[in-house]
Amino acid sequence: MKIRVITTGGTIDKVYFDATSEYEIGEPTVPHVFREAAVGVEWELQPLLRKDSLEMTEADRVTIREACEAAGETAILITHGTDTMSDTAESLIGIEGKTIVLTGALAPARFRVTDAIFNLGLALGAVQSKPPGVYLAMNGTVFEAGKVRKNKEAGRFEATGL
Amino acid sequence: MKIRVITTGGTIDKVYFDATSEYEIGEPTVPHVFREAAVGVEWELQPLLRKDSLEMTEADRVTIREACEAAGETAILITHGTDTMSDTAESLIGIEGKTIVLTGALAPARFRVTDAIFNLGLALGAVQSKPPGVYLAMNGTVFEAGKVRKNKEAGRFEATGL
Amino acid sequence: MKIRVITTGGTIDKVYFDATSEYEIGEPTVPHVFREAAVGVEWELQPLLRKDSLEMTEADRVTIREACEAAGETAILITHGTDTMSDTAESLIGIEGKTIVLTGALAPARFRVTDAIFNLGLALGAVQSKPPGVYLAMNGTVFEAGKVRKNKEAGRFEATGL
Amino acid sequence: MKIRVITTGGTIDKVYFDATSEYEIGEPTVPHVFREAAVGVEWELQPLLRKDSLEMTEADRVTIREACEAAGETAILITHGTDTMSDTAESLIGIEGKTIVLTGALAPARFRVTDAIFNLGLALGAVQSKPPGVYLAMNGTVFEAGKVRKNKEAGRFEATGL
Repeated sequence: MKIRVITTGGTIDKVYFDATSEYEIGEPTVPHVFREAAVGVEWELQPLLRKDSLEMTEADRVTIREACEAAGETAILITHGTDTMSDTAESLIGIEGKTIVLTGALAPARFRVTDAIFNLGLALGAVQSKPPGVYLAMNGTVFEAGKVRKNKEAGRFEATGL
Repeated sequence: MKIRVITTGGTIDKVYFDATSEYEIGEPTVPHVFREAAVGVEWELQPLLRKDSLEMTEADRVTIREACEAAGETAILITHGTDTMSDTAESLIGIEGKTIVLTGALAPARFRVTDAIFNLGLALGAVQSKPPGVYLAMNGTVFEAGKVRKNKEAGRFEATGL
Repeated sequence: MKIRVITTGGTIDKVYFDATSEYEIGEPTVPHVFREAAVGVEWELQPLLRKDSLEMTEADRVTIREACEAAGETAILITHGTDTMSDTAESLIGIEGKTIVLTGALAPARFRVTDAIFNLGLALGAVQSKPPGVYLAMNGTVFEAGKVRKNKEAGRFEATGL
Repeated sequence: MKIRVITTGGTIDKVYFDATSEYEIGEPTVPHVFREAAVGVEWELQPLLRKDSLEMTEADRVTIREACEAAGETAILITHGTDTMSDTAESLIGIEGKTIVLTGALAPARFRVTDAIFNLGLALGAVQSKPPGVYLAMNGTVFEAGKVRKNKEAGRFEATGL
């Protein structure tokens, strides 16, 4: 099994630039995390977008969907900002024969305390194990697309009543 | 879905005691890692053994199997030392109606560079996603029990030719 | 010996707020770092300002100087943003009978890779050891105030030719 | 100013070898820590011994003293195990014209939570700032040799009544 990893930006890839005292989306953190975890499964990185998810447009979602459809792999892991991750997940419903798992982080991967490393593991476990469909892996939980939302006050993802 | 987490020892839980300059298996690291990752899925800890996996006996494996059989949950995550993890996985084959995933770490969870956090995520993703059966989640890969071994020279898990 | 720790903001205390995807100066990191390092020397925290050092005004520098003059302790450690740290150091020259050491960080203390923890150690070592005067402790070096500047291109502090 | 860094072993350099499930003194951690802290002061590493400090003999202490005496630098930082650090410090008293600071760690530098990085900063600050003499830098405190001991029950260094 080979896994395609599509990165679109979000908190998980946020870095801090002292030169400007700014805080921006940097290089994808996935290769660094996968190396530290000695990931042995075959995978390929596709850096697609570099956006805060609040700035993600419908055109961006079409771009992501087209990338999933064009992928030769049947297992696709997408890193994405958390604020609109559930919207993008829903926009990918219906792609046939592929297991697609979205994940991200509430704290940047460069932080000492971060959910990024755990979440990438969670998503990689799910993408190898789930039947075709679209899933969102956050807060230690593998949700189905369309049945999850981010509770912004609580800062966590929750199953919806659907 | 509720997940049972059974801990049996191994490198993942190794700590360092300055008082004696010794290095022993300490408290399970799972609660700390799950808290930092803001895990929201329901889970219960069952600290069963505290052993290096090289010291794991057949009687210990019976104890682990009985704990799996007695569990009310259908999803079971087991932390285990790496040296005989594939042996214990094989000894659990045949338990019906339960998804059992074993994981561990090559470097202690207390280290700055460790695969422990990623591996726990990987295992938690797999245990929620796989059909009933026994699996081993290491090196970013979800293996089937009986089809994986640790390559001790290379320090990584590999699929066997079975 | 008791040490007064005055915090004024800067990168060292930067945190990331997922709720707003913003990156702001948070609570002083000093208590957390001192606790992890098991600091046994007596010290007292005085959170004075919470500013990026580029926004530090002459009025702020007067506030910092007055706080140093009013302190009952003869050893004072100040955390400060790096961009104008050398200016503030110079503005404190002439306070008699007190050893004042400024430090900060190029990467936030919450990062996995950061100079913050090391720099706080460096400053704490210097403030207990130097004769009265004003010093800047960065890049593993204890500089005298008035004889150091930040090289912004290189991202490090250097001795000036004075 | 150029600083000589002499390493003698101890917890600060402990690493964990999964292949053997053993825990041994590895390469000196100083170069890695100094690089992450962007240390700009000139320094040279002298890896002298690689011992648990409980195994340190009188002959070893003579070796350390001779290395200090032979050093061309007047500032010397020594990393050392904590159990007999105060004994070695006392054995170096009387070397003229040199500022010697010993430090180490209660938890290995490779741990996520460790005092190693802070302590190396503390010692580097002290060695640049103290007049000639022998000092021990631990628990955020710069002690004079001969006036400090490790309280093994409490796991911290304390000033003695001398």
